[in-house]
Amino acid sequence: MTQTATETIAFTRGVPDPAVLPGHQLAECFSAVLTRDPVGTLQYGQPAGYGPLRAHLATQYGVSEGEIFVSNGSLQLMDFLATHFLSAGAVSPSQSGQDHSGQRQSVLVEQPSYDRAIGVYRRRGAQVIGVPLEHDGVNLDRLEAQLKRQTPAFMYLIPDFQNPSGITLSLMKRRRLLELADQHGFWLVEDVPYRRLRYRGDLMPTLRDVAAETRTGANWVVTMTSYSKLVAPAMRVGHLIAPAAIVSALAKLGEDTYLTPTLPTQAALYEFLLRNLLDQNIELLKQKYGPRCRAMVGAVRRHLPGVSFAEPEGGFFLSITLPKDANAAGLLDRAKAEGLLLTDGRAFFADPDVPGEVPGGDRFIRLPFCAVTEAQIEEGIRRLAKVIG
Amino acid sequence: MTQTATETIAFTRGVPDPAVLPGHQLAECFSAVLTRDPVGTLQYGQPAGYGPLRAHLATQYGVSEGEIFVSNGSLQLMDFLATHFLSAGAVSPSQSGQDHSGQRQSVLVEQPSYDRAIGVYRRRGAQVIGVPLEHDGVNLDRLEAQLKRQTPAFMYLIPDFQNPSGITLSLMKRRRLLELADQHGFWLVEDVPYRRLRYRGDLMPTLRDVAAETRTGANWVVTMTSYSKLVAPAMRVGHLIAPAAIVSALAKLGEDTYLTPTLPTQAALYEFLLRNLLDQNIELLKQKYGPRCRAMVGAVRRHLPGVSFAEPEGGFFLSITLPKDANAAGLLDRAKAEGLLLTDGRAFFADPDVPGEVPGGDRFIRLPFCAVTEAQIEEGIRRLAKVIG
Repeated sequence: MTQTATETIAFTRGVPDPAVLPGHQLAECFSAVLTRDPVGTLQYGQPAGYGPLRAHLATQYGVSEGEIFVSNGSLQLMDFLATHFLSAGAVSPSQSGQDHSGQRQSVLVEQPSYDRAIGVYRRRGAQVIGVPLEHDGVNLDRLEAQLKRQTPAFMYLIPDFQNPSGITLSLMKRRRLLELADQHGFWLVEDVPYRRLRYRGDLMPTLRDVAAETRTGANWVVTMTSYSKLVAPAMRVGHLIAPAAIVSALAKLGEDTYLTPTLPTQAALYEFLLRNLLDQNIELLKQKYGPRCRAMVGAVRRHLPGVSFAEPEGGFFLSITLPKDANAAGLLDRAKAEGLLLTDGRAFFADPDVPGEVPGGDRFIRLPFCAVTEAQIEEGIRRLAKVIG
Repeated sequence: MTQTATETIAFTRGVPDPAVLPGHQLAECFSAVLTRDPVGTLQYGQPAGYGPLRAHLATQYGVSEGEIFVSNGSLQLMDFLATHFLSAGAVSPSQSGQDHSGQRQSVLVEQPSYDRAIGVYRRRGAQVIGVPLEHDGVNLDRLEAQLKRQTPAFMYLIPDFQNPSGITLSLMKRRRLLELADQHGFWLVEDVPYRRLRYRGDLMPTLRDVAAETRTGANWVVTMTSYSKLVAPAMRVGHLIAPAAIVSALAKLGEDTYLTPTLPTQAALYEFLLRNLLDQNIELLKQKYGPRCRAMVGAVRRHLPGVSFAEPEGGFFLSITLPKDANAAGLLDRAKAEGLLLTDGRAFFADPDVPGEVPGGDRFIRLPFCAVTEAQIEEGIRRLAKVIG
């Protein structure tokens, strides 16, 4: 496909390519499950999620059904987790009942992190503190310094192909994070929606996996994910794995908020899993997105030789940090004038104006590659080079 | 069907009879709409609801699409409404932009009212104040006295076949409420989920209808409803009609909470409406629920001659207020011992211990009749008479 300079190219939201949404397969799944289980999919109840889906996921993850909570997408999960962990009655693994001596007010995130997560935590009253990211994950010295000042209610991380950076947390750092959680007594919330979209390299164990192997910090991990990137976003199905006492507390928050989660979509997703359509869909996505990821890496290398970036091994994003002498002033407007849409990098920074050596949000650019063609990627990065040159 | 004294009878939650859930029809609707519009039903976006459903409802109600907001069920709508109306930046119809001089902290509800609504408003920081119900709706003298003390952010009402009382607000009182809203400048949130389940008597105009006829308080009405009682609860589709500026504010709250509402269910409901299945389903529900309503009225008259109640003209509930000399102490436990499950009446009272002449929650009993058979109703009321006798 030939791109002309007049076509606007959007490097903005991280959405799936609409062409890969499995409408026909999901239509069959909805039809099958609603016919088979009309009461289970349509009546009030099941505040922790559709029972058969919870049972299926419990088997898959080797936990009990009581440790699985399914809700209307990831953001809703984050909202409930923040509400729970920031409350005085939050559950800790070291006690069967009530938590950490007194209420905690801070939440740690990677810096940069997912902008909407930062927003949700703030709206629930948290002081959100960013810990700078390096190419192999969060800066541990900075994290330890922060932990000496204050123990957070939890730390939120996207360990694989992070949004917005594309960075993957190293195994060494995963181990150290679990030790720190154990030592200081705070929750690690790992969000893994991109994890199965790996285009190269070897699968990295989740924090949950590492904890189980090393028996360190095992009980401080909440693992959450969604099917928005692997099946379809508007299904709004996200789930998490946590100790049963936390799942009960979250289910109560869910019941108070929406009585019952939307069950037909959870049931259709269950059917999608039962029919082994997920693995097949993931293969299809990798075939589509892998070459786009490589095209993005290639284009950035060719057109932006001076910028710092980590080559993503999967997911939706590559991100760049502009050198200090790059022309970052009015970047979004100037890019738009060239037919290129960018997201304000500052949105991903809990503190967008970090002083000192760490680059701030004004020099950070997220480049989502899944919903653009290889030709659009090439042309878009060419335009970006012109704007910052 | 013969009922034995050993079978437990539940007069607890107001849920539809599982036998009437239209699983097969909805299966076809899901299948059709996902096949026809995979991107519209599955991709991110549309924070105010599925576009074609909003357009359909706009035509039905004679408003613009911008005045329709569709979300994951009624309780979620109430949560967003409370968040918005209790905020300093709430929209008023008298101004194009910002609202009532300063933030308001109170919400008025009928007393008794829907317990979960009371809970949601309180969790959003409201002081919830109950205005006693009479057999034709809210006590206007008490309401006016309350309005002299404090102007609320909004008043929440269920004008038709109210939950939990079964009471319908009279036309005279609807008119007066609109005058008071206009005069004092506060929102009326009318919730009409049961409205179309009328078993006898004539359709009453909604507050919105009355406002449009009389041109009084027209802009102070938000009308909300859901399809939980008319189609299926776990679809979690509720919508409201409000000025476009409010819909925009609610859509922003929705996006911040769940990014995108669950769209396949909204799309399937749209298809259900397009196929004219709603009217047909409502007729079927009336055939099933009407006789149960009459059975409940008859049983209460026969077995509980001393109690005060208003005969419901539709909906899910009849409620009774026990006379002062009835044995109300430990009612729930004693009923349970007789194989009868009741809900604590106090849950429906914002202030369960109203002093003076108005009966408090301890003498209030909600009797849902839709998910029980006529034989169960007869036997259940017989047991109740024994317990309070």
